[in-house]
Amino acid sequence: MNQKLLNVSSGKAFADTAVVNGQIVNVFTGEIYPGGVAICGDTIAAVGDISYCIGPDTAIIDAQNHYLTPGFIDGHIHPESSNLSIRNFAAAIQTHGTSTIMTDLHEIGVVAGIDGIRAILEEAKETSLNIYWIVPSHIPCAPNLETSAYRFHPEIISRGLEYPDAVGISEISGFSVISGNDELLESIDLCANKNLSLQGHLAGISGKNLTTCIAAGVVSDHEAITEEEALERLRTGCHLMMREGSVAHNLKVCLQAIKDHKLDTSNTSIVTDDLHVCDAVKKGHLDESIRVALKEGIDFTTAIQMVTINAAKMFHVEHQVGILAPGRRADINITSGPEDFKVLSVISAGKLWMKDQEILKHYSPAIHAPILLNTMHLKREISPKDFEIHVTDGRKQVQVIAMKTESCALVTSPVTGWLNVRNGIVECDVNQDILYIAQIERHGKNGQIGKAFMSGFQLKSGAIACTIGHDNHNIIVLGTNFDDMALAANRLNELQGGQIVVNGGEILSEIAYPICGLLSDLPAEELAAEKEKANRIIQNLSGETSISIPFMVLSFICLAVIPEFAVTDFGFIDVLNEKVIDPIIG
Amino acid sequence: MNQKLLNVSSGKAFADTAVVNGQIVNVFTGEIYPGGVAICGDTIAAVGDISYCIGPDTAIIDAQNHYLTPGFIDGHIHPESSNLSIRNFAAAIQTHGTSTIMTDLHEIGVVAGIDGIRAILEEAKETSLNIYWIVPSHIPCAPNLETSAYRFHPEIISRGLEYPDAVGISEISGFSVISGNDELLESIDLCANKNLSLQGHLAGISGKNLTTCIAAGVVSDHEAITEEEALERLRTGCHLMMREGSVAHNLKVCLQAIKDHKLDTSNTSIVTDDLHVCDAVKKGHLDESIRVALKEGIDFTTAIQMVTINAAKMFHVEHQVGILAPGRRADINITSGPEDFKVLSVISAGKLWMKDQEILKHYSPAIHAPILLNTMHLKREISPKDFEIHVTDGRKQVQVIAMKTESCALVTSPVTGWLNVRNGIVECDVNQDILYIAQIERHGKNGQIGKAFMSGFQLKSGAIACTIGHDNHNIIVLGTNFDDMALAANRLNELQGGQIVVNGGEILSEIAYPICGLLSDLPAEELAAEKEKANRIIQNLSGETSISIPFMVLSFICLAVIPEFAVTDFGFIDVLNEKVIDPIIG
Repeated sequence: MNQKLLNVSSGKAFADTAVVNGQIVNVFTGEIYPGGVAICGDTIAAVGDISYCIGPDTAIIDAQNHYLTPGFIDGHIHPESSNLSIRNFAAAIQTHGTSTIMTDLHEIGVVAGIDGIRAILEEAKETSLNIYWIVPSHIPCAPNLETSAYRFHPEIISRGLEYPDAVGISEISGFSVISGNDELLESIDLCANKNLSLQGHLAGISGKNLTTCIAAGVVSDHEAITEEEALERLRTGCHLMMREGSVAHNLKVCLQAIKDHKLDTSNTSIVTDDLHVCDAVKKGHLDESIRVALKEGIDFTTAIQMVTINAAKMFHVEHQVGILAPGRRADINITSGPEDFKVLSVISAGKLWMKDQEILKHYSPAIHAPILLNTMHLKREISPKDFEIHVTDGRKQVQVIAMKTESCALVTSPVTGWLNVRNGIVECDVNQDILYIAQIERHGKNGQIGKAFMSGFQLKSGAIACTIGHDNHNIIVLGTNFDDMALAANRLNELQGGQIVVNGGEILSEIAYPICGLLSDLPAEELAAEKEKANRIIQNLSGETSISIPFMVLSFICLAVIPEFAVTDFGFIDVLNEKVIDPIIG
Repeated sequence: MNQKLLNVSSGKAFADTAVVNGQIVNVFTGEIYPGGVAICGDTIAAVGDISYCIGPDTAIIDAQNHYLTPGFIDGHIHPESSNLSIRNFAAAIQTHGTSTIMTDLHEIGVVAGIDGIRAILEEAKETSLNIYWIVPSHIPCAPNLETSAYRFHPEIISRGLEYPDAVGISEISGFSVISGNDELLESIDLCANKNLSLQGHLAGISGKNLTTCIAAGVVSDHEAITEEEALERLRTGCHLMMREGSVAHNLKVCLQAIKDHKLDTSNTSIVTDDLHVCDAVKKGHLDESIRVALKEGIDFTTAIQMVTINAAKMFHVEHQVGILAPGRRADINITSGPEDFKVLSVISAGKLWMKDQEILKHYSPAIHAPILLNTMHLKREISPKDFEIHVTDGRKQVQVIAMKTESCALVTSPVTGWLNVRNGIVECDVNQDILYIAQIERHGKNGQIGKAFMSGFQLKSGAIACTIGHDNHNIIVLGTNFDDMALAANRLNELQGGQIVVNGGEILSEIAYPICGLLSDLPAEELAAEKEKANRIIQNLSGETSISIPFMVLSFICLAVIPEFAVTDFGFIDVLNEKVIDPIIG
């Protein structure tokens, strides 16, 4: 028992810090009224009339009649999508009022296993970002069609659920529930027996399938992309995580369902899923989502509930976070009102972290654990010849099937084209926008290289590559010629991971991701600037592509569970039939 | 994983039972719309359009366009207050649509310890009432002022929290938190470390004291008796259990606070705390509370939420009960609408339990575990002389202080009077309404008899006694003469507990409580009839008392934590000063 806290609450001792002159947004009652917050250490001691808690040594923070809200909670976010180290990521979102995240750190798990994830969570302890861990339910997504460094089976998940910060398992694939995946069902049972939370990934799931997933114990989903899906999830007793991230913008349609049907909002929350570093720097995080919600006509207190208590309740941690009340973590945002919503100052775990939008506390760079570093293990140097697709029967032309991607949709569709064959090697054709794409196993397991054809990026010359490729994080390389592709891959190996743009033997842009080949050590602003520069270079090489975040789109081309096609180190994947196929069809 | 359930949910197999033609009260969205519920075993497989679940062998329950609600949940009730065996208690409340209770079985714990509580929970398994156990936080209330058979210290509570049905600890005394009771704070830590629920008993607690209790981790309270208290609890982040029981009727004032301040209702629920068997038979249980709420202008769906999902969420079990959704226990009420609210039929754990108000499933009587029986252990036969209060200095009159009780308030206040002394023995005086009261230790520990004077019951002759006396459940006997008091006590010993009325050496009424001296084996209707008969007899002996439930009031006179006075086997207790005092003051 924290006796010091009880002494402050009861008036036997004074608070360390007192926030005064605020308008309390009480997410428990739905009211707004004047008051303050008294803090003891990292915990709220009293809320409301706190004058009795103020002593001669109490630090006073004057809220100047601004609103006091609980720190915001993102119930579903993958920090790795920002490519920021966890400390820089923490700083980037804390600036926008986020105090708590629920995350699985799935991508780190793919490369560095459970020990890698724990090492990142250890690094995060230097920050005051509050992290609950949702244990990844599957690593990788398609173990029979891709090579990852680590694989999570029920024993690993069981070990994960023992950690005190574990609050459930994440990304329970609806289709795997439907198909009766034994390992997944075993993991679900493990989690349910510990009375922890079963977080769904129910993309495209509806009707009987949705009913089946909820019957299996799934309690939330963040993949509703239409009003119908949003309504159906809530009616089926599934907490609706309304996603407003860098890739998917689903908040508006979800809110429309709520408005149209006058739905109870207490089982809804706002999440980002994936937050690109450029968005984090330029737009914000959940503060930006609140602005979207307010614009859609959602009441101020209701909007604040959607990023605080509703998520806390969903994860059964509302006694710890998500409300300005005694005994909760002292995460408090001082904000402007609904007309012009902005986070002005941030109190994080009891300390003034940002004052009038100026950050007071800067995190020192981490010394990364060995398991997070030197994760590039190519079996040998890559040669341009490694990318060749051969035809042995003397044909001069072959018909191929290429994956086509669109701007922001992650699905791929087939396009076919006739390509020339020179010296028994199939040649790509920039005029048809049918390019080479390959994935190179980089975990030191088997050195496999999978090859296919890609359409949609419209590169006219050069190659781009990166070491982020869901769900295995091998090297994914897209190119117009073998030499540039090999240069890109070998340079990424030297960098210990990253993203790269090359053209005619020249490196035009490179960003190193030394942490697992996934994360940079640059601060958010610098990384955002580097990424914007790389994107401009790619735009120049392609001329007319509409893909504004090319590396993020590229990383999803390897995902062997998003229809219709993918490329992994196993080869060209027919996702729906779950098998490797030949891209040459005639 | 329940594969059979998933088969029904997904349409691969047919439901065992289907409720059709209903109006679904969706407590998750707040909507009401037409639909049905498909059931597999004891679990809901699908809700809404369930036609695909109906096969040739599916039993059909036609709801005839009535409402379908989740089974009701009482988050704070002591079944022992009904004096019914747990199976008869279950039947009594299931008749009124209650499917789940959270209970500590504190009274059983006083007499038979944790093993006794577990034996009762074992008996309950024959029923389909769903019981979550809240481990008692203190047994007895005042260990230095009373003798109970068992005492709960942190090690016992720690053992209790290991049971899979344990969801928290109960009745955390606000004043014990404030005074810093070491054992209680240790138990709180044990419970918090397991992330279980800390249920408060915050009678009379407000301001800094309330803040301190919430800071200590208390998440709910059922003791708000004014609008101010209700509002203050919610504003402080404390779930408001609005009590509407046989002793306390607090629902109306709590609802008034909600209406006056337009408060979010999701953190409120309705509980009964104590339900007298006569009320259970004549009025109902939570169905009666819903009628009260509706009369107060609460919206129908909101009222249903207050007895279903809100309580489930408070205890973090909303994935198991409290909503009509896949994977939840198939506890479904078919009810009439808000105009004339009534539970018509009950589906309990998937089976039709009551149809058109006719009970289909009757529970067999339990063979009680030995630990629950033969709990009367008087050290020796009680003699009339045991009740004598002596004056040795030859005075003929003494001034005494007597406890006065009022109709339904549990507090006692002092009255003084002059009593005659004959042969050195103080004589009671029915004309002044100052009677003898005594408590006799009956657990075989020390044979202590505590004696005092009582006012308020207005008995003109005879004696009444029972073996229910909070918080120790020794024999409490009130009388006008020693002979009748001794007869009553000795007969209760023969009965192995119960309640009794005697007059002039004759037993006018007796009801045996063979289970721990607390519970009868009679069904609810019979027990209610016996109790009404006893109450009429007491009315006849007293003439003008306004105490309508005399034995329940008597049982609280022993409670050494309700001001201002009590009698225990230790003697006459000054509650506020926590000590035994002499009733003779002059």
